[in-house]
Amino acid sequence: MKIGVIGLGKMGRNLALNLVDHGHEVIGYDRSSESVKVAEQEGVKGVKDLEEMVTGLSGRKVIWMMIPSGDPVDNTIEVLASLLDKEDIIIDGGNSNFNNTLRRNDFLKKKGIHLVDAGTSGGVEGARNGACMMIGAEDEVFNYLEDVFRDVNVEKGYLHTGPTGSGHFVKMVHNGIEYGILQAIGEGFEIMDASDFKLDYKEIARVWNHGSVIRSWLMELTQNAFSKDPQLDSIKGVINSSGEGLWTVEEALKLKVPAPIITNSLFVRYRSQQQDTFSGKVIAALRNEFGGHEVEKK
Amino acid sequence: MKIGVIGLGKMGRNLALNLVDHGHEVIGYDRSSESVKVAEQEGVKGVKDLEEMVTGLSGRKVIWMMIPSGDPVDNTIEVLASLLDKEDIIIDGGNSNFNNTLRRNDFLKKKGIHLVDAGTSGGVEGARNGACMMIGAEDEVFNYLEDVFRDVNVEKGYLHTGPTGSGHFVKMVHNGIEYGILQAIGEGFEIMDASDFKLDYKEIARVWNHGSVIRSWLMELTQNAFSKDPQLDSIKGVINSSGEGLWTVEEALKLKVPAPIITNSLFVRYRSQQQDTFSGKVIAALRNEFGGHEVEKK
Repeated sequence: MKIGVIGLGKMGRNLALNLVDHGHEVIGYDRSSESVKVAEQEGVKGVKDLEEMVTGLSGRKVIWMMIPSGDPVDNTIEVLASLLDKEDIIIDGGNSNFNNTLRRNDFLKKKGIHLVDAGTSGGVEGARNGACMMIGAEDEVFNYLEDVFRDVNVEKGYLHTGPTGSGHFVKMVHNGIEYGILQAIGEGFEIMDASDFKLDYKEIARVWNHGSVIRSWLMELTQNAFSKDPQLDSIKGVINSSGEGLWTVEEALKLKVPAPIITNSLFVRYRSQQQDTFSGKVIAALRNEFGGHEVEKK
Repeated sequence: MKIGVIGLGKMGRNLALNLVDHGHEVIGYDRSSESVKVAEQEGVKGVKDLEEMVTGLSGRKVIWMMIPSGDPVDNTIEVLASLLDKEDIIIDGGNSNFNNTLRRNDFLKKKGIHLVDAGTSGGVEGARNGACMMIGAEDEVFNYLEDVFRDVNVEKGYLHTGPTGSGHFVKMVHNGIEYGILQAIGEGFEIMDASDFKLDYKEIARVWNHGSVIRSWLMELTQNAFSKDPQLDSIKGVINSSGEGLWTVEEALKLKVPAPIITNSLFVRYRSQQQDTFSGKVIAALRNEFGGHEVEKK
């Protein structure tokens, strides 16, 4: 299939090369002309703007966006809506909030353009050599694209989750679960690190990956990380987040589902970004007020 | 090697058969003579009490306990201490609290008997066909037993974590992490179940096991569970616990390590065992007191 790929960053470039590997013809665009040049050297046909991309495609056009969620997606869809024809297909392979996907789908539907949400997991390496995709799409559109999804994912690594929006929803929950798993692993290693035992974390992660109940890809990555840096001395424990955890919590609140672990994992990330806390100051001040307990001065 | 196995329940019986498969001669004992009979039919030499077991062993004797943690272990060790000789070895393959293991080690050391803690993961199926063990032992004792550990575990599935006590400590943390991972998975599926999307949980677990960041053995078990019962209609959401999660939290408290996810996962289990809560009654009563908010009557 001839496919346009918008966004040739870490994920988009690797997806494009993955598509090329499987015999697809890829027309690639990125805001950075440097990224386009790099992709051209790897078998992608580069274009200078979306108009040129659309002109280069023929028949029922398929365009795959691999760009940051939020405004970039809205802006791109606005441009594409004016360039594409009825029955053409836009795939959003990024981490969009599924509520935005539903809204964009309503907008594109009026123009007869189909939106597919392909929530993508497996990281950069997955995008390159075989990813895992949760795909929301109308049945007919999914069937039209299924061969492509089969090509770029690992075996059994794609699922038609339901109508447009469901793919990003399931991907969001996937990431929410990931927040909790990561935090559980982190806490476990911190408890070990605080103990009197002299433990080899790389070896512990290794043994946990061979036959234990918690064997997992994340534990393999734990093993990798400790192999490179036995005490992680070179990095700080600041954990950023890019939205999916927050959205999972927002959804839990909307649906009134108690989700203390995913929620707390998000709060732990926020705390990790703070040097000091105002809540801590308030509590220290109050303990001083009522009990004369000492306060640490700045 | 000739090895005594005490406890021929789910784990002990399977470990005994695993040892037999690897050419070891196993003398087995269980409080239930029925369990002994079953094991005898499978190649284990049954005995009627610990005295007969010890008499049946020769040279440097090795006895592996696979019995419930707590009093049963203390009682068994008390009996064994009077039967075994200097340099003999007792392996505790159960889920003992590592603090008890340290205490028992002090007691046995005075008699010249070695205690080894082999924290065992991988479930019943692992005990039978290849487990994962975290092993606390003196170097000399570990070296003496290493071939046996190599035999009964999956490849790379055993680790000498350090001195006696460290094996149960690392196993405890493993289980604490497991509590958090399980709770994260549970919350994710509950959020999906509360949504308007009609999702196939078995298929979602399946796709998450193929290329996603959260692929793991526990997600494979999730896939199994939903394959058998697509909405888990046949079971209740009551989660029991057998101590390891609690001990991880106790250790976190002792070491002053913030561990909100593991701790909350334990509390969620306690809550799952309640029909109603006294805290809920208190809060409902107070909301009624200050705001006239309605109260549900019994």
